[in-house]
Amino acid sequence: MKVIGIADTTFARFDMAGSAIDELSEMGTGFRIARYTVPGIKDLPVACKILFERQGCDIVLALGMPGSKPVDKVSSQVASEGLMKVQIEQSKHIIEVFVHEDEAGDEKTLAWLMDSRTREHAQNAFNLLYFPERLTSQAGHGLRQGYADVGPIQGETKGSRIRH
Amino acid sequence: MKVIGIADTTFARFDMAGSAIDELSEMGTGFRIARYTVPGIKDLPVACKILFERQGCDIVLALGMPGSKPVDKVSSQVASEGLMKVQIEQSKHIIEVFVHEDEAGDEKTLAWLMDSRTREHAQNAFNLLYFPERLTSQAGHGLRQGYADVGPIQGETKGSRIRH
Amino acid sequence: MKVIGIADTTFARFDMAGSAIDELSEMGTGFRIARYTVPGIKDLPVACKILFERQGCDIVLALGMPGSKPVDKVSSQVASEGLMKVQIEQSKHIIEVFVHEDEAGDEKTLAWLMDSRTREHAQNAFNLLYFPERLTSQAGHGLRQGYADVGPIQGETKGSRIRH
Amino acid sequence: MKVIGIADTTFARFDMAGSAIDELSEMGTGFRIARYTVPGIKDLPVACKILFERQGCDIVLALGMPGSKPVDKVSSQVASEGLMKVQIEQSKHIIEVFVHEDEAGDEKTLAWLMDSRTREHAQNAFNLLYFPERLTSQAGHGLRQGYADVGPIQGETKGSRIRH
Amino acid sequence: MKVIGIADTTFARFDMAGSAIDELSEMGTGFRIARYTVPGIKDLPVACKILFERQGCDIVLALGMPGSKPVDKVSSQVASEGLMKVQIEQSKHIIEVFVHEDEAGDEKTLAWLMDSRTREHAQNAFNLLYFPERLTSQAGHGLRQGYADVGPIQGETKGSRIRH
Repeated sequence: MKVIGIADTTFARFDMAGSAIDELSEMGTGFRIARYTVPGIKDLPVACKILFERQGCDIVLALGMPGSKPVDKVSSQVASEGLMKVQIEQSKHIIEVFVHEDEAGDEKTLAWLMDSRTREHAQNAFNLLYFPERLTSQAGHGLRQGYADVGPIQGETKGSRIRH
Repeated sequence: MKVIGIADTTFARFDMAGSAIDELSEMGTGFRIARYTVPGIKDLPVACKILFERQGCDIVLALGMPGSKPVDKVSSQVASEGLMKVQIEQSKHIIEVFVHEDEAGDEKTLAWLMDSRTREHAQNAFNLLYFPERLTSQAGHGLRQGYADVGPIQGETKGSRIRH
Repeated sequence: MKVIGIADTTFARFDMAGSAIDELSEMGTGFRIARYTVPGIKDLPVACKILFERQGCDIVLALGMPGSKPVDKVSSQVASEGLMKVQIEQSKHIIEVFVHEDEAGDEKTLAWLMDSRTREHAQNAFNLLYFPERLTSQAGHGLRQGYADVGPIQGETKGSRIRH
Repeated sequence: MKVIGIADTTFARFDMAGSAIDELSEMGTGFRIARYTVPGIKDLPVACKILFERQGCDIVLALGMPGSKPVDKVSSQVASEGLMKVQIEQSKHIIEVFVHEDEAGDEKTLAWLMDSRTREHAQNAFNLLYFPERLTSQAGHGLRQGYADVGPIQGETKGSRIRH
Repeated sequence: MKVIGIADTTFARFDMAGSAIDELSEMGTGFRIARYTVPGIKDLPVACKILFERQGCDIVLALGMPGSKPVDKVSSQVASEGLMKVQIEQSKHIIEVFVHEDEAGDEKTLAWLMDSRTREHAQNAFNLLYFPERLTSQAGHGLRQGYADVGPIQGETKGSRIRH
């Protein structure tokens, strides 16, 4: 039985973990969810590591909402670097689901964005674990999580090879 | 018996460690406090590591007050990256409590902010150690440490699932 | 038999992996390709590590298209740092092929750029693996991948030595 | 017998190591000094590591003067990150003493600043090694190295506790 | 017999490795040079690691020319961080010789700068390996590589000690 970890925060203004759990439960069965809540995004990387080590997680969703001030942007970068470090150390994916507080113009849109991005990344996590070929079939398709997909672009490219 | 570490600095303009110790003593018993003071925030990460290794700490509060100049902002980022590295290496939380000198308009407010943010994060550290379910019950509640909580946001979200 | 890894994303708007596979197949034989598709560029570093560990890759091409917003620029930096970390840990090259969405003024040029930069870096990967002397023979030649090479510069330099 | 390392550069415009050695000799006895000079600040981290490994240093002072151009600011950040990494790896302090070339308006003040900051941090290093309680007694005192201490701030704080 | 590594790129617009090899050959004998050419500066860190591991290098010169666009500045920072990581891991120096394309106003000056900075850093590498005391004798002298040395500054400093 696979284990999917969910790390979330009390800082975020929406229950992203609720969306993730709901979405995962609709994707399929055969897995167990392990959840760990921390104060803020900079606490997420070690929370993910603890989920891998003590809960035996196969993949983790790291859910957070960085604030809109310059100091929050630095926190977000430091948090992302930490998530990167843990992934590489563990050779396992952490799907970072960050919705910046200033990505939406009003609270209703922000709630919608936090819900839908979390759900779509929960699908990504599920597929990486069980059906990686689904991602390969959509490589280069300009997919987005939350706002609408932008789609692939076309161009004449076959004749452009330059060999040194 | 658990050990809670406190790393603080001579650079800060308020005795944040005093606030942390006072708050922790009101939270409960059954733990020992280990304190280590260093010159500035860039000395905190190795101080935390030393607290983990030589004092057997289960969690550490890293207390600091980054200055307001551009060079101080870089120091703050480097310090945060170091705290991240130590946490991941040790698989234990370091609660970073940084109050930037320019977060408050006057000294009285700054003192209040340093005191109250430290106290609220001391509560977080205590809860992570003894009552992690308290954090989970407040996930997504928009909690803040120091200034007032912003609270959760609401929105119609259940029907927004887009599945690839 | 050598193994060349290709890590790509569903976020990108062009099938860069297709270009890489096509180009490699024209460069020579004697290698196997292992492909792994992830959601976005920040998922590439651990994908590359997994390609090295589970597929025994000798080199990996990491293909991605960072977006044009400030938050995307930070993601790109964090992704590059992760690719750096994996390379150093494994003592093997990851050729980062990133085409920023704002590097081209229109979609057709962007598609061309993503195709041609990928192809030229596929050549680099092939040469690093089989013919490193080809790179040495072009050291300092001002080569570029995608847009035209800028070429070497000339100057009177032999008499400029200053010895302390 | 303790060993205090001093790493310095040929890039700096003042003999900071001279100030450090002079100050340390006035602080006390019972230690040996190991010195290592490198070209610039980005060479300091590995110099510090070499001082720890080959000279058995218990603490190291890393002395440097970052230049004033944007490229120098990046070098300074990379150097600080390296010093952080070595400290954490070794579980030993490196006291970074950087004086940015643009911190003073004229050369005379710059020389004074490089001398006095180095001396005050030499005291910090000595105290961390022999009398850590001296630092604890000054925690939160707003100490600065070089320019004058700013001192602690006061405020009414005891009644501000907010408990979740 | 010592081994001096040289890592360079096809991206640079001047044969920096040629300058380094020429300068080293005039500095002395008793060493062997190992050269490794990669596409760009972000490929240099793992190239340096490979030079240490497979060629037994005692020191490496990492030669590169970062471009002038914002994206190139980020690449340069990531490359420097990687060089830092490899140095610390190996406990051996990598002398980073980067000449930013926008450091000179015209191509002739750029070529001169790339040649002369490389030569002066080749001297630094040689001295670090064989005559480290030469660097110590020039500590704090305001040396520069490429453009003219700025020299040391003077000031009244002896009476400025402030002891806490």
